[in-house]
Amino acid sequence: MKERIFYEPLQHKVVSAQEAASWIEDGMVVGMSGFTRAGDAKVVPLALVERAQQEKLQVDVYTGASLGPEVDDKMAAAGLIRKRSPYQGDPVIRGLINSGQVLYADAHLSHNAELVRQGIIGPIDYLIIEATLITEEGHIVPTTSVGNSPIFAQYAKNIIVELNMAQPADLEGLHDIYIPDVQGKREPIPLTDASTRIGTTAIHVDPEKIKGIVISEITDAPSLIVQPDEETAQIASHLLDFLRAEIEAGRLTNELAPIQSGVGSVANAVLNGFLHGEFENLEVYSEVLQDAVFELLDAGKVKFASATSITLSEECGKRVYGNLGKYKDKLVLRPQEISNHPEIIRRLGLISINTALEADIYGNVNSTHVSGTKMMNGLGGSGDFARNARLGIFVTKSYAKGGAISSIVPMVSHVDHTEHDVDVIVTEQGIADLRGLAPKERAARIIENCMHPDFKEQMRDYFDRAVEATGNAQTPHILAEALSWHTHLAEQKTMKKS
Amino acid sequence: MKERIFYEPLQHKVVSAQEAASWIEDGMVVGMSGFTRAGDAKVVPLALVERAQQEKLQVDVYTGASLGPEVDDKMAAAGLIRKRSPYQGDPVIRGLINSGQVLYADAHLSHNAELVRQGIIGPIDYLIIEATLITEEGHIVPTTSVGNSPIFAQYAKNIIVELNMAQPADLEGLHDIYIPDVQGKREPIPLTDASTRIGTTAIHVDPEKIKGIVISEITDAPSLIVQPDEETAQIASHLLDFLRAEIEAGRLTNELAPIQSGVGSVANAVLNGFLHGEFENLEVYSEVLQDAVFELLDAGKVKFASATSITLSEECGKRVYGNLGKYKDKLVLRPQEISNHPEIIRRLGLISINTALEADIYGNVNSTHVSGTKMMNGLGGSGDFARNARLGIFVTKSYAKGGAISSIVPMVSHVDHTEHDVDVIVTEQGIADLRGLAPKERAARIIENCMHPDFKEQMRDYFDRAVEATGNAQTPHILAEALSWHTHLAEQKTMKKS
Repeated sequence: MKERIFYEPLQHKVVSAQEAASWIEDGMVVGMSGFTRAGDAKVVPLALVERAQQEKLQVDVYTGASLGPEVDDKMAAAGLIRKRSPYQGDPVIRGLINSGQVLYADAHLSHNAELVRQGIIGPIDYLIIEATLITEEGHIVPTTSVGNSPIFAQYAKNIIVELNMAQPADLEGLHDIYIPDVQGKREPIPLTDASTRIGTTAIHVDPEKIKGIVISEITDAPSLIVQPDEETAQIASHLLDFLRAEIEAGRLTNELAPIQSGVGSVANAVLNGFLHGEFENLEVYSEVLQDAVFELLDAGKVKFASATSITLSEECGKRVYGNLGKYKDKLVLRPQEISNHPEIIRRLGLISINTALEADIYGNVNSTHVSGTKMMNGLGGSGDFARNARLGIFVTKSYAKGGAISSIVPMVSHVDHTEHDVDVIVTEQGIADLRGLAPKERAARIIENCMHPDFKEQMRDYFDRAVEATGNAQTPHILAEALSWHTHLAEQKTMKKS
Repeated sequence: MKERIFYEPLQHKVVSAQEAASWIEDGMVVGMSGFTRAGDAKVVPLALVERAQQEKLQVDVYTGASLGPEVDDKMAAAGLIRKRSPYQGDPVIRGLINSGQVLYADAHLSHNAELVRQGIIGPIDYLIIEATLITEEGHIVPTTSVGNSPIFAQYAKNIIVELNMAQPADLEGLHDIYIPDVQGKREPIPLTDASTRIGTTAIHVDPEKIKGIVISEITDAPSLIVQPDEETAQIASHLLDFLRAEIEAGRLTNELAPIQSGVGSVANAVLNGFLHGEFENLEVYSEVLQDAVFELLDAGKVKFASATSITLSEECGKRVYGNLGKYKDKLVLRPQEISNHPEIIRRLGLISINTALEADIYGNVNSTHVSGTKMMNGLGGSGDFARNARLGIFVTKSYAKGGAISSIVPMVSHVDHTEHDVDVIVTEQGIADLRGLAPKERAARIIENCMHPDFKEQMRDYFDRAVEATGNAQTPHILAEALSWHTHLAEQKTMKKS
């Protein structure tokens, strides 16, 4: 293990997971590394789970985003989590959130760092961070994600490092750690290109704060591959056609603009579309890099990819981490404050593709709440990207539950992205370009282009009556009916009213 | 007039308002200067109104924000406007918007410039811009606002200048014109302080594009002074106490942070509070500077103020424009893309104060739509500021219409600012600090601290039943009832149900 701890005084601080876990007290605030199941601390959280099964132990857990399922699941089931922020994607936590047993502060992923600086999140008693190695200066090289770890490390009173021997040592050099100063004393972030390196390869910390080092050999939970079905392929196809039309209109070249895409099968289908398309020299500026980005790197279609985490399938992981040298000059992992920063997203002019749970006829999007009340996963970075991107694109199938649910509704039951932040909506039915339109113009496009035929007539009827009832107001609605598709679903198991 | 046209070839292009207006054709896209009734073109629009009264003439009108009432009112009444963006505040236009006669694309004020670059707004046939003077190089010095004029000037095919002899010539030097390059080729905006000058004092244009110059002598419409009443004074007092508590907590010093405040009596009451408070060396980084800011400058409380327009009462206007030299090194007017840019707002860490029309118990805010359907004024810059500020504060009286309406409702009827973007809500009843809270924590604070006593019990009852009905979900709602306060108001003229 000395080949991974280059700062000599810390070599004596190696302890067992149980000992490290014993330092955490009931009621503490704990930061953890980990973003979309990559680079999460694993053995200390599981030792905490053991303690929580035997004694009263509840902590506030702040992460990058979701952790690996084996960690998130067990922490939640053991009742270890009092409050969680900013993101989760786990069925067990979700159940506890929606039964009032876990407090969940769903938030823009770029916002946490400011809240830490302000002391709204914190004081952070411990940061538990997975590391590749500790440098000669006592600084920490993260593993497969950066997330919020740098800002947590700066403000945490104590740090527990999980040195993961199963992560390849040559991850060193992949990261670019840049932490803006406090607001008001801050310089412009000097990043003008997805590939610009502006920081250091390790997280600078006072080594005195590292209270212990725990050895780990548990690999990241692999991502699940969701094969695109016919409809996701249609969505991807509409989107690629739209991008071609943008090139035709002179708004883009065939190098497009740096691409951000959320996690999921549609995103994968779009990226797969690039594999066989005419687009060249692409760049990715995103949160998470999944298998498809590495296929595009291999094919020479993507020339550079920036993100805050790498989440791969088992097979792709072997290929990438077995040949990191091949990718290292084409990849960078940044703090999520930087990968998701409005300043950078706006400057670079990203093409941003995220998934909607539902959208309404005026272009408002719900990304998080099933029927307006139950949390699904969380907002993630969708708001950071959609508001500030060159193109804020939302994708969804036009229907769900075998046709019982229309994903396009009169009024969304929860708003995560307002009508002012949604540029384009795509379903398997087609695409609605909403840029520059007034609400009623948007409604016409969304209904005609994006809705499933089974629901179109019902919506035209609602819209026409709403126009009539409001005297053709700016945003026609019949408030007593606006959420009736959802209540009908709850009562009749379908949004179809006929 | 030669003393205002320093570029000789343009001295021969002076024409009448009628002639300039005759160049505008039916169906054209027209950009106009003007932001919150300051610096708007006046005589050419009124000549267009004359034409529209006699022939078919309808154009799309893109502005900075609202124009002076004599211009906006008459253009709307004459049926001159087909589409309008991004903001208006006029009763006549409002009526036409809400009866389907004017299309209105309400938008974040920082977003227009990107849409112009992309050609989504445009091609712009004519920019009609009020100017103080034309420089030796043929460049245009604006008057009391900058707004979107620089980006319109860059992309417009033709420019009509209204040279306003009633505006003082020494406005020259007040402006700082900086236009970011297209996305992807853009450098960081080098502004690190409210007082940083990063651009030029005139709008650079190809003088060939200036098709004509019209002489004007009409002054800006003065702003109306709304005297604070007891409740706005209470809101201001709560807000000042909150800022004191932030200083106590070490999050601010008594120099606070650059302040943005919307237009209106609460904003004025807060700024008046600074006049007699312990805060020192304040800075303003806002959209509009009103009387109160000049009183603070006079009192030495504010050391610098940056905005995109100056809108003053008649009395204050005389004082300021008669002594511009006294203020000139403490003031700057920027393009609205810069005054409202997420990059700058986040970097400087603004304290942002805007008015809510209504808020809900989870912290979502409606700034624009009466009962979810009828447009009031528009979003303005509230979204640019609230999302990116250090403190996104929304103020509203807890009730309206003599107590028939609660400004805190179960679910807002339209969302302009999501739960993720609202840090603090203030009413005359008290303040709810929502930072870092989960939705049900927010609900408790908003109901108990901000609601009018007349509505509290009705809301507690709704909330308790929603918790019960959803099994204590993340965001408890009874969808069939969530908008019932609004429908009850429509039917019974009150939100009170008992």
